[in-house]
Amino acid sequence: MIEVRERVRFVETDMMGVVHHSNYLRWFEMGRVAYLRAAGVELLDLISNNYLFPITEVTCKYKTSARFDDEIIIRATMAEFTKAKMTFSYQVIRQADEVLLAVGKTTNVFTNLEGKITRLNQDYYDRIAALYEQEMKGRNQ
Amino acid sequence: MIEVRERVRFVETDMMGVVHHSNYLRWFEMGRVAYLRAAGVELLDLISNNYLFPITEVTCKYKTSARFDDEIIIRATMAEFTKAKMTFSYQVIRQADEVLLAVGKTTNVFTNLEGKITRLNQDYYDRIAALYEQEMKGRNQ
Amino acid sequence: MIEVRERVRFVETDMMGVVHHSNYLRWFEMGRVAYLRAAGVELLDLISNNYLFPITEVTCKYKTSARFDDEIIIRATMAEFTKAKMTFSYQVIRQADEVLLAVGKTTNVFTNLEGKITRLNQDYYDRIAALYEQEMKGRNQ
Amino acid sequence: MIEVRERVRFVETDMMGVVHHSNYLRWFEMGRVAYLRAAGVELLDLISNNYLFPITEVTCKYKTSARFDDEIIIRATMAEFTKAKMTFSYQVIRQADEVLLAVGKTTNVFTNLEGKITRLNQDYYDRIAALYEQEMKGRNQ
Repeated sequence: MIEVRERVRFVETDMMGVVHHSNYLRWFEMGRVAYLRAAGVELLDLISNNYLFPITEVTCKYKTSARFDDEIIIRATMAEFTKAKMTFSYQVIRQADEVLLAVGKTTNVFTNLEGKITRLNQDYYDRIAALYEQEMKGRNQ
Repeated sequence: MIEVRERVRFVETDMMGVVHHSNYLRWFEMGRVAYLRAAGVELLDLISNNYLFPITEVTCKYKTSARFDDEIIIRATMAEFTKAKMTFSYQVIRQADEVLLAVGKTTNVFTNLEGKITRLNQDYYDRIAALYEQEMKGRNQ
Repeated sequence: MIEVRERVRFVETDMMGVVHHSNYLRWFEMGRVAYLRAAGVELLDLISNNYLFPITEVTCKYKTSARFDDEIIIRATMAEFTKAKMTFSYQVIRQADEVLLAVGKTTNVFTNLEGKITRLNQDYYDRIAALYEQEMKGRNQ
Repeated sequence: MIEVRERVRFVETDMMGVVHHSNYLRWFEMGRVAYLRAAGVELLDLISNNYLFPITEVTCKYKTSARFDDEIIIRATMAEFTKAKMTFSYQVIRQADEVLLAVGKTTNVFTNLEGKITRLNQDYYDRIAALYEQEMKGRNQ
């Protein structure tokens, strides 16, 4: 799993005194970006090569509320991967006591800049597949 | 179904040129607030009566990207309702051509201000149940 | 002055129980978009004609905190206008009692899609100038 | 100056392809929080001691657009400090080439949890004043 470490921002809270639930999707995104970077794929590079990656589905289960100033760990891993789409799964952990704050999944497809569904080219596919397979091996051992 | 009409804000877009997927959860929330208001229950009143309503689960399926300046209709209806929790389902529609942009669900529980799980009192329950039953009758006819 | 009416969203609050100060800039933007629309200039049309309009300066003075569910009026008017830049001034008013919540100003320049400083073409200039002059006449009477 | 290092989030961009100008206020806030932490004052501790710290004025000048994935440095320093209010000034720097992205200022007052203007107690005052004076000495040398 690829990890990103963050500290909860004041603006991420709402008047219930905890983090607004929509912000977890933004944390998932940071994990996803870091995963792809670890695979050698930069989003800006994808875009300049005419790929967009719109989210088609998201789920999130909230276990424990994150609070302002919490140091959190966002973990992202690939759950399913083809040239046509990626499904990532995520965990958000409170660093201080390793309590699980939330788990989730996102699926995205690939489109060109005009929004037409497309497939990832072989080069990008190979880079991401290499990290995906390496991670799967690690999990099965 | 209770409806809220909005216009997509510039800030809600991202560099893919469409609305960032996290914002749909904020639109769902506006539908949920409007539904409860239609039932005679104000969130500020709930809070001052020592109730919070944290989200425990959310799902969203994105069908067509919302774009800046789109006039949208957010539809919310209650899917399941007990004194312990509420599940709402949502549709987001593009007003111009009635294209479905997204569908989703949220579940929330009730807690007191200290975060302890609690149950809605009879008065609030009755008000929301009245709207819920009226809507279910409408759907079954 | 051009007016936009909104209702404060739950997500716009923070753990101080009031609207986070950054959100007023997003409300100003809604007023600015509405002003330009009233002049017959759509932002999407500007962009497809190769104009961007980055903000170069913003100021905001906060008078009274906006709260969740407040119905607010966002008022925008043009303070200075040339082909090279626009300065808008704003008021945010609480509708219920007409209390002034905040005042502010933004300045933006025009660039092409590559970020190079440019000047507005005559057609756009004329449309915006017409509304600007009409408003100035109103203020001076 | 106290520094915070961040990486620009995808969600912080808008359809102009750069960071939305409202997000710089959220970065300033992170600098402000870090400054107070460096002085030994935690916001959560302030709140539990019945202090809120609403912003009364903000200014920001935008020099160069921040872009997705930019590594940025947020620098905060105290410009004016009394028991009644604090004025911070900020710089946002792009780490790669030390280009200045934005400068700004915020002023906040102190209130109690009911929103009534109040003054910081001696203990908090002394801690913040110690860092403030140490920084001023550094600047004057």
